[in-house]
Amino acid sequence: MTTVGILGGGQLARMLALSGAPLGLRFRVLDTVADACAGQFAPLIVGDYRDESALTEFASQVDVATFDFENVPAESAQWLSARIPVFPNPRALGIAQDRLAEKTLFRELGIPVPDFADVPDRAALDAAVAAIGTPCILKTRRLGYDGKGQFRIKTPGDVEAAWDALGAQAATVGLILEGFVPFDRELSVVAVRGRDGEFRAWPLTENWHVDGVLSASLAPARVDADMAEHAYAHARALADALDYVGVFALELFCRDGVLLANELAPRVHNSGHWTIEGSETSQFQNHLRAVLGLPLGDTRMVGHACMLNWIGTMPDASGVLREAGGHWHDYGKEPRAGRKVGHATLRAETPAELAEALARVGAALGREAQVSPVVAVLAS
Amino acid sequence: MTTVGILGGGQLARMLALSGAPLGLRFRVLDTVADACAGQFAPLIVGDYRDESALTEFASQVDVATFDFENVPAESAQWLSARIPVFPNPRALGIAQDRLAEKTLFRELGIPVPDFADVPDRAALDAAVAAIGTPCILKTRRLGYDGKGQFRIKTPGDVEAAWDALGAQAATVGLILEGFVPFDRELSVVAVRGRDGEFRAWPLTENWHVDGVLSASLAPARVDADMAEHAYAHARALADALDYVGVFALELFCRDGVLLANELAPRVHNSGHWTIEGSETSQFQNHLRAVLGLPLGDTRMVGHACMLNWIGTMPDASGVLREAGGHWHDYGKEPRAGRKVGHATLRAETPAELAEALARVGAALGREAQVSPVVAVLAS
Ligand SMILES: Nc1ncnc2c1ncn2[C@@H]1O[C@H](COP(=O)(O)OP(=O)(O)O)[C@@H](O)[C@H]1O
Ligand SMILES: Nc1ncnc2c1ncn2[C@@H]1O[C@H](COP(=O)(O)OP(=O)(O)O)[C@@H](O)[C@H]1O
Ligand SMILES: [Mg+2]
Ligand SMILES: [Mg+2]
Repeated sequence: MTTVGILGGGQLARMLALSGAPLGLRFRVLDTVADACAGQFAPLIVGDYRDESALTEFASQVDVATFDFENVPAESAQWLSARIPVFPNPRALGIAQDRLAEKTLFRELGIPVPDFADVPDRAALDAAVAAIGTPCILKTRRLGYDGKGQFRIKTPGDVEAAWDALGAQAATVGLILEGFVPFDRELSVVAVRGRDGEFRAWPLTENWHVDGVLSASLAPARVDADMAEHAYAHARALADALDYVGVFALELFCRDGVLLANELAPRVHNSGHWTIEGSETSQFQNHLRAVLGLPLGDTRMVGHACMLNWIGTMPDASGVLREAGGHWHDYGKEPRAGRKVGHATLRAETPAELAEALARVGAALGREAQVSPVVAVLAS
Repeated sequence: MTTVGILGGGQLARMLALSGAPLGLRFRVLDTVADACAGQFAPLIVGDYRDESALTEFASQVDVATFDFENVPAESAQWLSARIPVFPNPRALGIAQDRLAEKTLFRELGIPVPDFADVPDRAALDAAVAAIGTPCILKTRRLGYDGKGQFRIKTPGDVEAAWDALGAQAATVGLILEGFVPFDRELSVVAVRGRDGEFRAWPLTENWHVDGVLSASLAPARVDADMAEHAYAHARALADALDYVGVFALELFCRDGVLLANELAPRVHNSGHWTIEGSETSQFQNHLRAVLGLPLGDTRMVGHACMLNWIGTMPDASGVLREAGGHWHDYGKEPRAGRKVGHATLRAETPAELAEALARVGAALGREAQVSPVVAVLAS
C-alpha cells in the first residue's frame, strides 16, 4: 500500500486523489485550512507548511510527497526531501517559484523569453523601464499567481504608481520587470517526465485569460507541426535540465509565429484539466504515475475539448450536463470572489460540433462572453 | 451541498464516490466492516444494515440514499425510504433480491426466461426436476451472488446431493429450480432510468464467467441490431414496470439467437465497469445523475473495450499501464481467495487492436486463459 502526500489541498490535490484512487493509492493532504476541498476525499492534516510538527506528522504517514501548490517554502520541501522522496525535486520547485531564476534558465537553454530585468530597488526599476521600454509589467518574483502581484506600466508616467503598489515587496519576495508582449495568443504545453527521464506531452492547448486568471482552454491548439515541435523541445529541455519528475506546464506567448516562454508551473495545471475526459490518460494520473515510477500513460487526445473555468460561483450545471460531451467539475468549495470553484469540459468529435456545444452552453449559462473567443477560433 | 448515502461500502460504492466527486457531491457509506474499501475515499459508518441506530445516524447525514449492495434487508430500505428519498425504490430492490419474484415479473412482461419453479420443500424439488428435466440448477432465491448458493443437478441422481447442500435454506432464503441453459454466450444490458422516466442504455456487453464469477467483459458485444433492440426493450420494460431510478444490469443468456433473461442487478454492475474509460459517461456518474434528478449523460461508446476482473490478488500493474489504452483499477482491498480486488480496462479504436493488446496483457500478466475467449471472439 502506497500513500502519496500532497502539499496543498485545493482542487489540484482533490483531482490527484480522485485519479490516483484507481491505482490503489492512499493520500494524505497538508493544507493550512481545515476546509481545504481535497479534504473531502483524502485525510487532511491542517498546519502551516513551515510548521515542523505538521511536516513531521505528514512525513511519517506518506511514502512519497508532491505538490498541489508551488509556493510551499523551499526549506520545507528540502526538509521533507531529506526524509522521503519528493517530486518534483526541491531545486526544480525553487526555480519555478522565482520568475527571475526561471527566465534566466529559459534563456540559458536557448528558449526565447520576453525582455526582463531584476528590480532590487527603485533605481533599478527606472533603469529597467528605460532599457525595456513601455508597455511593460512589474511582477513579484515569488508568490504571484492568477495575475496577482502584477502591475502594468503602460507609459513611463505609471512607474511611480507601480512602485507604490509593489515596491515594498522588492525586499521580501523580489521584483522583476518584463516587457509586455502583444501576443496573438497564449499557448501551454502540459507535459510529464518520468523518474527514468521518459518525456510525454499532451497536444498544445490554447488559453484565454481574463484579469490574469485562466478563463478557457482549447485543445488541440491550432498550430503547425513546426511550432508544436518547438514547444515540445522547449518543455523537454527544461524538464531534462531540472531533472523534473511529474507533470508541469510551460506557458507560452505566441507572437507572429514566434513562441516566447512566460512561466513554468511545477505541477498539474489548470490548462490541462481537459485531459480528464479529453485524453487517454489525464494529467493527474500521469503525474502520479511519474512520481511513483510507474509506466507513463498515453497522452493522445480523443476528439476536441474545451475547458471553461468557473470563478467565484458555480453556474447551474444542467446546461453542461445536457450536452452529450459535457462534463462537470465542482470542487466542493464555498463561493468567493475570484476563487476557482470549478470547471466544465466539453468534448466533441469535430471542431464544428465543439463550437456548437460551446455556443449552446454559453447561452444556457449566460456565459456568452466566456465562450465567444473559443467559438471564434473554432470557426476561423 | 448534497450528500449521497450508499448502503454497502465495497468497490461499487468506492467508484460511485470517485465519479460523483466532480458533481460536487459528498458521500456517506454504511457498511458492516471497518475496512470497507469505499471508506478510503468517503466517510464510513460501521454498522449492521438492520441496526436502527446506525441507520438513524446514516439517514441524518444524507440527502438521498442508494445501494452498492442489493442484499440490504428490504425492511431497512423501507425504514430509510420513510425518512429520505431512496433510489432504486424498495419495491424494485425487493423484487431484484428474489430470483422467484424477478423471474415471475420477467415472464409477466413477456421477457423470455429459462424454465423455473419454486422449491419450498423436498417434494417440490422432485416435482420440479421431473417437470424441468436435467441438467438444471438449484439456487437460493435470495442472497446468492458470484455463483454462491447454487448447485448444478446434472442427472436425477444429483438431486439428493443438491438437497443436502441447499435444502436447509428452503425455509430461510427460499429455493428455486432453473433449467440449465446451454447458452452460446452471456450478454448484459447496463442501462439507466432517470427520475422522469428517461431511459438510456450502453452498448450490449458480452460476459465470461469462471466458477460463477465474472471474468471478462467485452463491449460492444457483437450482436445484430434486432437482438440489441430486444435486449433494450426488455430492460426498458422492466425499468418502467418497477419505476426504477438509477443504473441496473439485466443479465441475459443467448442461445441460437434467442435471449433469455437470467437476473436483474439493481445497481451499477461489474459488466459496466468498462464505461469508466470506454463511454462518454460512466455507469457510476449516470447512476448518481439519475438518483439526483440531473440530466442523464451520453452512453455512447468510444472505441472498443474489454474489462478483466482480478479475483483474489492483484496481478502486477505494469503490463496494463504500459498499454496505450490500459487502465488500472485497484480497489484497495486486502487479497482474499475469491474476492473481487480490482479490474483493468483496455480500450482500443478497433477490434484488432484490442485483440493485440489483450494478447500482450495476457502474456505479461500470465493471464492467457482469462483473455483467450475474448481474443477468440474478436478474431472471429
Ligand atoms: N509579459 C507579459 N506580456 C503580456 N501579457 C502578460 C505578460 N505577463 C503576464 N501576462 C498576462 O497575464 C497572465 C498572468 O501572468 P503570469 O505571469 O502567467 O502570472 P500567473 O503566475 O499569475 O499565471 C498571463 O497569462 C498573460 O495573459
Ligand atoms: N440457468 C442457468 N443456465 C446456465 N448457466 C447458468 C444458469 N444460471 C446461472 N448460470 C451461470 O452461473 C452464473 C452466475 O449465476 P447467476 O444466476 O447470474 O447468479 P449470481 O447472482 O451469482 O450472478 C451465470 O452468469 C451463468 O454463467
Ligand atoms: Mg501564468
Ligand atoms: Mg449473475
